Amino acid sequence: MAGSTYGSIFRVTTFGESHGTGIGAVIDGCPAGLSLDESFIQKYMDRRRPGVSKYATKRNESDTIEILSGVFEGRTEGTPIALLLRNNDQHSGDYSEIKDTYRPGHADFTFDEKYGFRDYRGGGRSSGRETAARVAAGAVAVKFLSELGIEIRACAKSIGPFSVPDELMDYDEALNNPLGIPDRSTYEKASGFLDSVAEDHDSFGGIIECRIINLPIGLGEPVFDKFDAELSKAVMSIGAVKGFEMGDGFKSALSKGSENNDPFGIKDNKIVKETNHSGGTLGGMSDGSVVVFRAAVKPTPSIAIPQRTVTRDREEKELIIKGRHDPLVVPRAIVVVECMGALVTADMILRNMGSRMSAVKEFYR
Amino acid sequence: MAGSTYGSIFRVTTFGESHGTGIGAVIDGCPAGLSLDESFIQKYMDRRRPGVSKYATKRNESDTIEILSGVFEGRTEGTPIALLLRNNDQHSGDYSEIKDTYRPGHADFTFDEKYGFRDYRGGGRSSGRETAARVAAGAVAVKFLSELGIEIRACAKSIGPFSVPDELMDYDEALNNPLGIPDRSTYEKASGFLDSVAEDHDSFGGIIECRIINLPIGLGEPVFDKFDAELSKAVMSIGAVKGFEMGDGFKSALSKGSENNDPFGIKDNKIVKETNHSGGTLGGMSDGSVVVFRAAVKPTPSIAIPQRTVTRDREEKELIIKGRHDPLVVPRAIVVVECMGALVTADMILRNMGSRMSAVKEFYR
Amino acid sequence: MAGSTYGSIFRVTTFGESHGTGIGAVIDGCPAGLSLDESFIQKYMDRRRPGVSKYATKRNESDTIEILSGVFEGRTEGTPIALLLRNNDQHSGDYSEIKDTYRPGHADFTFDEKYGFRDYRGGGRSSGRETAARVAAGAVAVKFLSELGIEIRACAKSIGPFSVPDELMDYDEALNNPLGIPDRSTYEKASGFLDSVAEDHDSFGGIIECRIINLPIGLGEPVFDKFDAELSKAVMSIGAVKGFEMGDGFKSALSKGSENNDPFGIKDNKIVKETNHSGGTLGGMSDGSVVVFRAAVKPTPSIAIPQRTVTRDREEKELIIKGRHDPLVVPRAIVVVECMGALVTADMILRNMGSRMSAVKEFYR
Amino acid sequence: MAGSTYGSIFRVTTFGESHGTGIGAVIDGCPAGLSLDESFIQKYMDRRRPGVSKYATKRNESDTIEILSGVFEGRTEGTPIALLLRNNDQHSGDYSEIKDTYRPGHADFTFDEKYGFRDYRGGGRSSGRETAARVAAGAVAVKFLSELGIEIRACAKSIGPFSVPDELMDYDEALNNPLGIPDRSTYEKASGFLDSVAEDHDSFGGIIECRIINLPIGLGEPVFDKFDAELSKAVMSIGAVKGFEMGDGFKSALSKGSENNDPFGIKDNKIVKETNHSGGTLGGMSDGSVVVFRAAVKPTPSIAIPQRTVTRDREEKELIIKGRHDPLVVPRAIVVVECMGALVTADMILRNMGSRMSAVKEFYR
Repeated sequence: MAGSTYGSIFRVTTFGESHGTGIGAVIDGCPAGLSLDESFIQKYMDRRRPGVSKYATKRNESDTIEILSGVFEGRTEGTPIALLLRNNDQHSGDYSEIKDTYRPGHADFTFDEKYGFRDYRGGGRSSGRETAARVAAGAVAVKFLSELGIEIRACAKSIGPFSVPDELMDYDEALNNPLGIPDRSTYEKASGFLDSVAEDHDSFGGIIECRIINLPIGLGEPVFDKFDAELSKAVMSIGAVKGFEMGDGFKSALSKGSENNDPFGIKDNKIVKETNHSGGTLGGMSDGSVVVFRAAVKPTPSIAIPQRTVTRDREEKELIIKGRHDPLVVPRAIVVVECMGALVTADMILRNMGSRMSAVKEFYR
Repeated sequence: MAGSTYGSIFRVTTFGESHGTGIGAVIDGCPAGLSLDESFIQKYMDRRRPGVSKYATKRNESDTIEILSGVFEGRTEGTPIALLLRNNDQHSGDYSEIKDTYRPGHADFTFDEKYGFRDYRGGGRSSGRETAARVAAGAVAVKFLSELGIEIRACAKSIGPFSVPDELMDYDEALNNPLGIPDRSTYEKASGFLDSVAEDHDSFGGIIECRIINLPIGLGEPVFDKFDAELSKAVMSIGAVKGFEMGDGFKSALSKGSENNDPFGIKDNKIVKETNHSGGTLGGMSDGSVVVFRAAVKPTPSIAIPQRTVTRDREEKELIIKGRHDPLVVPRAIVVVECMGALVTADMILRNMGSRMSAVKEFYR
Repeated sequence: MAGSTYGSIFRVTTFGESHGTGIGAVIDGCPAGLSLDESFIQKYMDRRRPGVSKYATKRNESDTIEILSGVFEGRTEGTPIALLLRNNDQHSGDYSEIKDTYRPGHADFTFDEKYGFRDYRGGGRSSGRETAARVAAGAVAVKFLSELGIEIRACAKSIGPFSVPDELMDYDEALNNPLGIPDRSTYEKASGFLDSVAEDHDSFGGIIECRIINLPIGLGEPVFDKFDAELSKAVMSIGAVKGFEMGDGFKSALSKGSENNDPFGIKDNKIVKETNHSGGTLGGMSDGSVVVFRAAVKPTPSIAIPQRTVTRDREEKELIIKGRHDPLVVPRAIVVVECMGALVTADMILRNMGSRMSAVKEFYR
Repeated sequence: MAGSTYGSIFRVTTFGESHGTGIGAVIDGCPAGLSLDESFIQKYMDRRRPGVSKYATKRNESDTIEILSGVFEGRTEGTPIALLLRNNDQHSGDYSEIKDTYRPGHADFTFDEKYGFRDYRGGGRSSGRETAARVAAGAVAVKFLSELGIEIRACAKSIGPFSVPDELMDYDEALNNPLGIPDRSTYEKASGFLDSVAEDHDSFGGIIECRIINLPIGLGEPVFDKFDAELSKAVMSIGAVKGFEMGDGFKSALSKGSENNDPFGIKDNKIVKETNHSGGTLGGMSDGSVVVFRAAVKPTPSIAIPQRTVTRDREEKELIIKGRHDPLVVPRAIVVVECMGALVTADMILRNMGSRMSAVKEFYR
């Protein structure tokens, strides 16, 4: 209810503040018998880890994952999988300025209003660091999906004004550059642009695109828990995300029905959609096409430019945020989007298993 | 789990197929003592009702709401409020063509794949008619919110290429024209455009904008159940919606931090945001500004233009969809968006009540 | 949250007050393809129906079930199954005496304290009539289980001091007498006893026993949602039930480990328990034995004997409850216990399907 | 769904196996501003800790609680409270005998059947050690309740045949003897009896009684989530519990209505029940009397007496369980029952806050 749990069957609960003892996640409902160890999860942690590129905050966290429960002799047991990351680099000394001052674009003000006070150290529970727990849990979902042949990958579709056209999108290239852009030449332009933004002590936004490949047909539930709706919730729950779209998304608002509908055809004796304007779902259920969705990411709110703000005691003041901050959120958020997509998909996989009486009978035969 | 329930405390479960006996909703968790009768809900049903304008399907449903339980002597009892709409105009005779043929842009194919068969009459559970149950339940949420001084209103921000600029938005005008456009001259242009689209037997999309006014600060839960995330899920769960954004949304992906951050100031001795790029939330919690979000609505998939498709038995064929269909979904979807927004907000209002120990103590004093 | 929903996957929401427009249930999560029609459910309604024997209230309700949704051409669609029973015999005129007076043993006082007022007509939501909705939904669960070969049956293990010894229990006989007692001679003794109780205008309690036969092994979840725990909740949620036990239950508190443990052996090349003190579960999971549980049912609180009580306005007074009331709850509660057991089991059947990775892989092969 | 979470608003998720890295709990939904530190929780851990008396297993666990998150400067933050207990005394070497052999009365067999394999070390997830996580979380609930003036206490109502009559129950005495019996002379008899049972290498059961004092009226939800039903689920979910009753419980099955009903009267200008056969609830809601419930606890299944059993490979064999085991579960289960009762009550306290419209308006005024 307090909102730190996601999922119905494959269910994740996260905990932890930016500068407390540790952060982590408990996954309940992962089937027994999945091969899993720390090293698989660690690879995902490392992709999100701060301090790995010039675009990422200089905070130094080793982010070493520890599995506390739920795995025995290299396999999941069907019991809760608890994952822990201790906070090493807590720098508890230097929060005097923001302790009582509300940073624009951050949750300081709303947190105080809701709860009466807050852990002001590094954003507390509303820190971007919270997403580390999502990545730890999401990596388990990725592993689960991979055993079913399902792949999920995200990249930076655009950084500021520099956007990669659909026909140039190369998901492999996205792993080769520190911005996660799926096209070399766009990366170079965006990179130069960001240097100038950084010189101005400012920050910038972008768009992340994610694809889920090789999904079974029929995932997602018809009314409130449509696949699209759950993906949207999961992605919009990432702090910096301000927009979400499936397939053609906002462009479909400018389309005619005759353009937007995807014709059906037969290929290899199977029913397939010949185009994919819908982004891989129909009526909220996966339709056999690639699931494609995008997230609009706002610029990092922490900037070293003077901003007008107020204190807890209602004094107006000017604030310059110092310290270690990414000039853009997008690169490190890519793996977070992937992981949230994986959590949604894993849950939908399990939720779908009781859809047909014939399958239930087969299972218990 | 099967996804026909929305909400944690103010919780709605809907039921019903397009051409079955009836559709409806059960609301569990509405506080006792709210004044409520059928006439209030009926006003919302009438806004969504088919057959009321030239842009809406000619299906003739009276959509008379019946309260089956939960209201006694004009007030809610704290027990489940069951709402029923009988289907009158069922036209069961004429479904031979689509019984075995998959309509592009519809859920026929995915429904069959998930469940093994489907109620092919009028789209069954995946019909737009399903939203009538959302409106019935949402009207109760609107009533609940209105007693707390909270107002929620939506309109057609754009129809096809015709968009109303922010400075011309007039929510009252939106109630005066059948397209729900908040500007008279834009309405006239869009209206002419739609006539030509309809002549071509085609359809068109648009964007709905919704505002929630006078919210308490702090609604929404910090991590997965952010106010933004829940609104997104609720709105993306409406069949025709393909995109969602809060505040500046996708535009914020093109912004600098120095532009996107909303400075804080003091007004009437209260802390206020001086701009509202964020759309009324910070860290997923309402921040005292107006909550503003938008939904991208795809064109009506049912068009009387020949389309390539296949049958259940994998035969390719051409399909022309006859019958009663709106040339655009937007006008009737406006009240659905409003109602989904109201359901989310009502739930968040109740979820927030246990946030502080001091409030719990005060309550039980 | 407000507590009118039971179940995680096979999920039931009930609604309705004793003398409102109607009562009913919505089942979400029943698999598609289950054969179902009104006549099957009606048989269960008839078993619970008032006015059918001299031991049951004389209220005259036809309790005709109507399926509003979720069933198409004789099979469940995988969509919500809405079930409605209209209240016919509402007798709205004669509630002046109990409108402001709290009946001992009833929820009048607590309902007023919680919600500020109540539907005083016939107990409103807290009436025994509420269980009709459970039976309607439970009948669907019974049908679901029967297709998997699972059978569930309850009977009156004891009425007042007359108890049927284990070795005489004959579940078929229980259907032959109006008290549901599984032994003819015990029935005759209990029957005479009840006549004398009824002459005194008093009422009496008893114990219901229920068995679930032919369950798959492994149903139930290891920690909080043990099969035993869910059965207990479901059964204790029936208004008149004050105690619950599995297998030897309270007797096991008087046992030695060497007596209480069930030895394992091999039979027909399968592992079986040689005794069944545990009542069919080990560690909260079904163990292949018959699941056996019992519910202690209190005497009907409505009695036509003068009782000391108070009014809403805190005046002491004497109350004699007139009208139509069963001298004991047990006979009509038997089918309610069966139905609650069926709802729990149906849910556990579906929850168990994602327990093993190998089964998930097999399902999606 | 996999059943390691309890509660709706005050919601606990536990994790951990007996001999894995650690066990723990995450509490989401605890209000912000509750004073809390490790020392308070530690007192409850110490009451449950093994190795503290001659009746408890000799396993040596320090059970030192660590708060990983959710508490800042001595107060809860409204964010998830993660609690960790590392397993020190893992003794991983000596499980060869039970690795493939099913211990009677344990979950070894059902666990293997459900999940395909199990962590055989010390019972894995189905170990009594799992309850340590419940106690850690429950201690937080106890703290929460204590700030509202609510007190919860359990004791051993009976050990084997030795039962304390109601009129001699002294809850303070229960803290003075290692069996938790609320009467000195009964303790002495039970103690002698247990010595003889232990000499026979056998074990014994008993009954735990729990009282909740000073509850607000109206806690609990009217239909499925009655206070009684939730208490029952919570208590029956403790591994060794086989029966549950509220107030007169099974005795009420032997009562007349005229005896079982509690008359209402006026005391200090308040409405009170003059007796408490119901055990503190009416219609599933707390009624202002003391809540009283009892749990039947089976004898410890691990006994050093030869037992007939089978192996995983279906070989019959004889098993003598060696090692460290309590001759009875009751004394250490007392605090577990208390803690489960506290978790239920804390949740009901928060769930009740949105019951009335007037309270919601007052809250947001």
